[in-house]
Amino acid sequence: MVSSSTATEIERILAGDNRAVARAISKVEDHTPDAAALMQGIFPQTGRGMVIGITGSPGAGKSSLVDRLAGLYRQRGDRVGIVAVDPSSPFTGGAILGDRIRMQTLGLDPGVFIRSMATRGQLGGLAHATVDAVAVLDAAGYGKIIVETVGVGQDEVEIVKTADVSVVVLVPGMGDDIQAIKAGIMEIGDVFVINKADRDGVLRTEKELETLLSLAHRDDMWQPPIVKTVATESKGIAELADAIAGYYEFQKGAEPGRARRNAIARWRIIELLRERLLAHALEADGMSQRIDALAAEVADKRRDPYSAVDEILKAVGGNSFQF
Amino acid sequence: MVSSSTATEIERILAGDNRAVARAISKVEDHTPDAAALMQGIFPQTGRGMVIGITGSPGAGKSSLVDRLAGLYRQRGDRVGIVAVDPSSPFTGGAILGDRIRMQTLGLDPGVFIRSMATRGQLGGLAHATVDAVAVLDAAGYGKIIVETVGVGQDEVEIVKTADVSVVVLVPGMGDDIQAIKAGIMEIGDVFVINKADRDGVLRTEKELETLLSLAHRDDMWQPPIVKTVATESKGIAELADAIAGYYEFQKGAEPGRARRNAIARWRIIELLRERLLAHALEADGMSQRIDALAAEVADKRRDPYSAVDEILKAVGGNSFQF
Repeated sequence: MVSSSTATEIERILAGDNRAVARAISKVEDHTPDAAALMQGIFPQTGRGMVIGITGSPGAGKSSLVDRLAGLYRQRGDRVGIVAVDPSSPFTGGAILGDRIRMQTLGLDPGVFIRSMATRGQLGGLAHATVDAVAVLDAAGYGKIIVETVGVGQDEVEIVKTADVSVVVLVPGMGDDIQAIKAGIMEIGDVFVINKADRDGVLRTEKELETLLSLAHRDDMWQPPIVKTVATESKGIAELADAIAGYYEFQKGAEPGRARRNAIARWRIIELLRERLLAHALEADGMSQRIDALAAEVADKRRDPYSAVDEILKAVGGNSFQF
Repeated sequence: MVSSSTATEIERILAGDNRAVARAISKVEDHTPDAAALMQGIFPQTGRGMVIGITGSPGAGKSSLVDRLAGLYRQRGDRVGIVAVDPSSPFTGGAILGDRIRMQTLGLDPGVFIRSMATRGQLGGLAHATVDAVAVLDAAGYGKIIVETVGVGQDEVEIVKTADVSVVVLVPGMGDDIQAIKAGIMEIGDVFVINKADRDGVLRTEKELETLLSLAHRDDMWQPPIVKTVATESKGIAELADAIAGYYEFQKGAEPGRARRNAIARWRIIELLRERLLAHALEADGMSQRIDALAAEVADKRRDPYSAVDEILKAVGGNSFQF
């Protein structure tokens, strides 16, 4: 089933060839026909690197924090992969500036691989493509893989959940929306960072966070540590690395680890299934024009979206929905 | 096709009965069997209210801003619907505190309807449920419908795009991640707000924003205004309402309006199709156990996610994928 060119690509990835890694990630993003065979080939070689998810609001200074943490891991001899999940740009499909800015500090180091991911087109699949990109880096022997997500959106939360260690970054003085943070990301943080800790209000934010954490219940009984950092001055980075390593060791032995791995595997399967089902429906002959025509009817309120979808489903079912 | 109880519910919604509105939104969220018939019944009566999308990071003070704007619209005699899209809580399925807090200020007014939406379960469909909730409020005669999203995630951006007018809220001093903001939400803002405009750095943020806006290209040639507010002191709220009304009038006559409506209709159809396809696949006999078993194999690395999904697709196809 696996073509010889795909087999060669797999070998190159496993040997740590960065150009092969970059090509593989592009294939996953673009849904190319050979992406599945590639991923199947490397999958058994994954699970050795430590995957660190870092999330928080825009303005929390995540990029600086990730850069400094990556720098520290490099000093300690690890190869570091960084996957930045950027909010999609709805009109351009995601014009990303982060890469170019970063290349100035870390990009010249061949032991660091940086990639931005953004949604492309209607198939979605950002979450699934990101998790696959992490798997490629893992198989290529990157010891530390940092997944950085901007924002607290639905997909972004899911992505961070698949990391071995999830880090939530806050800044002093977020007052108003602390409820939103609680509902969204408090529960996924294994480690909390208060960045920009030289600012006013750091003590109050720390107290609020401690209160929220004391109310939260974790099945694994882990007490998430709070680390204060000033990333732009490299302060607190070693303490952050220690806190991350602490949870990584803890969860390896913990019983809930297995349940979590199963839940992540189930989520990956569902995500991939969702994407494949839609792709199959959309690639039917004449489907794109049919949907355009139905969309025009819906826009004019001559038809409602539900009956439009019923039409499409009937057409898909009639064309024998075989895989 | 429409049962008499559904017909009665539709009548109640169209008559502006808030309890019927609340029930209908719950049905859309819970994917009940009669949700489609309900939506089909009210759809022709939608399109009269003004839908305002408000987005920005946690900490930007969106909740206060929305509350004050709603208060202003109430003073002017409009009924106001507020749909708050909260980041999903991955473990509890979205425990939302915002509602209770809000009820203290606006909730006693029967002319204000407030609802929080959060993802439930693996079907996803947050975006689609939110857009349907807006349609229900629209059909029930709410003149202003405000959709508030926290964060800049993929789904959140899509939701805001479906509004008639999209408002992006910033705060002074977001420096670091202004790039992320640019990539994610700059392009969807019809109106920009710098909230907490009594803080240091407001002029710098305004200058940066003006520069970014001057670089952006809009097909409709609209120049998004920048409004400065201090929501907690009700400053700038009338100016914000004017800016929103300005764009609303502008887009009604504009040529790109039709293309945008078509694009939104297409997006709604695709979202609903995605959800229905997955729901159909998952409800096949024994599918849930089958996926659990495959997930355990993937978690143990005895199998890769791609071949697991191939198995599921074969089973779905074999069971005659008919609708």
